[in-house]
Amino acid sequence: MPLHDPVHAFVPYPDAPVPHAPTGPLSGLGFAVKDLFDVAGYPTGGGNPFVLAMSGIKQQTAPTVQRLLDAGARFIGKTVTDELAFSMNGDNAHFGAPINSAAPLRICGGSSSGSASAVAAGLCDFALGTDTGGSVRAPASHCGLYGLRPTHGRVSLQRTLDLAPSLDTCGWFAREVQTFARVADVLLGADAAPIGRGVRLLWPRDLWALAEPAAVQALRPAAERLQALAGPAAQLSVALESFDAMYWHLRHLQGREAWQTDGPLIERFAPPLGPGVAERFAWSRGVTDDQVVQAHAFRGRFRTHLGELLGSDGVLVMPTMPDIAPLRAAGEAALEDYRNLAIRLLCLAGLSGFPQLSMPLARRDGSPLGLSLLGPAGSDRRLIALAERLAHQA
Amino acid sequence: MPLHDPVHAFVPYPDAPVPHAPTGPLSGLGFAVKDLFDVAGYPTGGGNPFVLAMSGIKQQTAPTVQRLLDAGARFIGKTVTDELAFSMNGDNAHFGAPINSAAPLRICGGSSSGSASAVAAGLCDFALGTDTGGSVRAPASHCGLYGLRPTHGRVSLQRTLDLAPSLDTCGWFAREVQTFARVADVLLGADAAPIGRGVRLLWPRDLWALAEPAAVQALRPAAERLQALAGPAAQLSVALESFDAMYWHLRHLQGREAWQTDGPLIERFAPPLGPGVAERFAWSRGVTDDQVVQAHAFRGRFRTHLGELLGSDGVLVMPTMPDIAPLRAAGEAALEDYRNLAIRLLCLAGLSGFPQLSMPLARRDGSPLGLSLLGPAGSDRRLIALAERLAHQA
Repeated sequence: MPLHDPVHAFVPYPDAPVPHAPTGPLSGLGFAVKDLFDVAGYPTGGGNPFVLAMSGIKQQTAPTVQRLLDAGARFIGKTVTDELAFSMNGDNAHFGAPINSAAPLRICGGSSSGSASAVAAGLCDFALGTDTGGSVRAPASHCGLYGLRPTHGRVSLQRTLDLAPSLDTCGWFAREVQTFARVADVLLGADAAPIGRGVRLLWPRDLWALAEPAAVQALRPAAERLQALAGPAAQLSVALESFDAMYWHLRHLQGREAWQTDGPLIERFAPPLGPGVAERFAWSRGVTDDQVVQAHAFRGRFRTHLGELLGSDGVLVMPTMPDIAPLRAAGEAALEDYRNLAIRLLCLAGLSGFPQLSMPLARRDGSPLGLSLLGPAGSDRRLIALAERLAHQA
Repeated sequence: MPLHDPVHAFVPYPDAPVPHAPTGPLSGLGFAVKDLFDVAGYPTGGGNPFVLAMSGIKQQTAPTVQRLLDAGARFIGKTVTDELAFSMNGDNAHFGAPINSAAPLRICGGSSSGSASAVAAGLCDFALGTDTGGSVRAPASHCGLYGLRPTHGRVSLQRTLDLAPSLDTCGWFAREVQTFARVADVLLGADAAPIGRGVRLLWPRDLWALAEPAAVQALRPAAERLQALAGPAAQLSVALESFDAMYWHLRHLQGREAWQTDGPLIERFAPPLGPGVAERFAWSRGVTDDQVVQAHAFRGRFRTHLGELLGSDGVLVMPTMPDIAPLRAAGEAALEDYRNLAIRLLCLAGLSGFPQLSMPLARRDGSPLGLSLLGPAGSDRRLIALAERLAHQA
């Protein structure tokens, strides 16, 4: 980890040698890794003391981390994650709340809180996170970073702690779009469809209606620059059934899988879980088979629905989060309310498996706010190319 | 650690080989070690996630643990400690509250909670703990175990996490006095004064007045058996100045040293400390130089005072704790009140550096209660011999 970590982004493991290629496309870049990924020479703590105790020192490095090392990037350290990655608050009862340099009185968002904090503070050039229900997109929006939730399954999560495998994805953060794109070239390669093809912007008015009016206002100039570049966005509605239905189906899928993943640990050790996390696992345990069956069926229908709306070239332009980050001093209840609203925005990518890129293109009250692009499966690199064009034009 | 740990006494580190002598005086005995002592192949977590993260895998074993291994005892695992050993509640916000098999609705007491829990549950024959302000004696009393706070400095604490070095001691727990004495032979050797010499029992009436009347009542039969064996106890008062003065001097000594030990960690990482622990460290930080100077002077006077009362053969007969263990459901405030009362009983050994043995010779409401013997410096083995005689006679 860095000698000085004033934002408490890193877990202070003793440094172990992590060799990287002497040259390569990521040469000169330093990166941090959320403490869910195995790195040889380090434990994998997952933000929970029991997971950390049981981990031992890993002998092998997660393949996604290894790809970055092989591309010449330098490993800096492992970052704090919300406990067992099952929170969006950017706080951990055992490892603390990393500081959001872009808005120090506000939360980082999570669960990839330390990775976002480290990049926002300039302690590294980019950082790996994971996104199950929003854990890359939320902190990207709150910390003023580029952050991608890739197409489900596109970036390997081997040798990485699961939360809910059918929803888990591996994303990353960077301050600069150029850096972000260099990492994309290594982790994504090329899309199956060529980048050069035009996109068709779409404006999901029902999603925008969920965001705070002040946030919508703040995002408007960036959305207009985007339309000036790529053509006007056609209005549409994206909800299937209702946002409430989508919210619950996502929560049932995530809850069931989270309990399958962590229930054995929780039942064996009765670990003291942090506020919110304990309640969510207790709730997850009670998700019924019927709820899961219905959620699976809904997910299939939603994927088809959104796939048809997007076609091969549609890109939703949408707010990443309902608003700027809540204050650190906000209580658990206020954070839970915020989270429940946020999930309604975030669940499109989760339910569909489609990629979503958050771009740090707006501020409100001095705090960052992300504008998102959500495209069809496999369009990840094209979304980033659009962000690059937009940044170069600005 | 044991395959099954239904009392949550152990920290679930991956098992590493810890060789022990094939034969020896402790052959056939299995022991556990509070997670403050280094054991090669394991981290040392100290009940705090940051200490655990920074630990890495230790390469060398604490000499006191090594002596047990060299005597043929088999290492079973590392046990949960109250956070940074700075609590008497037997709870840890990160690693949970080990269960007290002798009184499952009540706390184990701490900070050597997991060691006491493991021995009480029969998961091992004996276990190492540390006692700074009562961390062996309190759980011994609450869990129905023999537990010794040795003469300060008599048992090595090298390669063990400090709390307050001028008060820290290394003790142990066992269910059976025979087992307890076998460990004593290895860790203490012989006293300078021969064991066979008679003892002169002393009854500190001002100390007894601090205990709950029902607890006094419950301890009386054991105290009478002891007097039948070793002669009637002469009544005396032991407080110097007042119990309040003694309480505060001990707390100032412990607080200053605890802050010297853990202040750098706390200031560097701002770790989320558990309830009570956070408040005690915050208080410790504010202990003044003047308070410490006065406490040092008082400690010298008290050691002389108690040394004169005891002479070479005096042994105080006293309650270990004010009462049976508080309920697990007791709030932090009730526990704090109990702790503050307990320290008035426990501070004699801390301030004097003299040995104190708690014997599981009473019960009240079905829960254990310890009777203590406190003798002059270096009389540790003689106190245990007295406990052996008492047990054999029963």
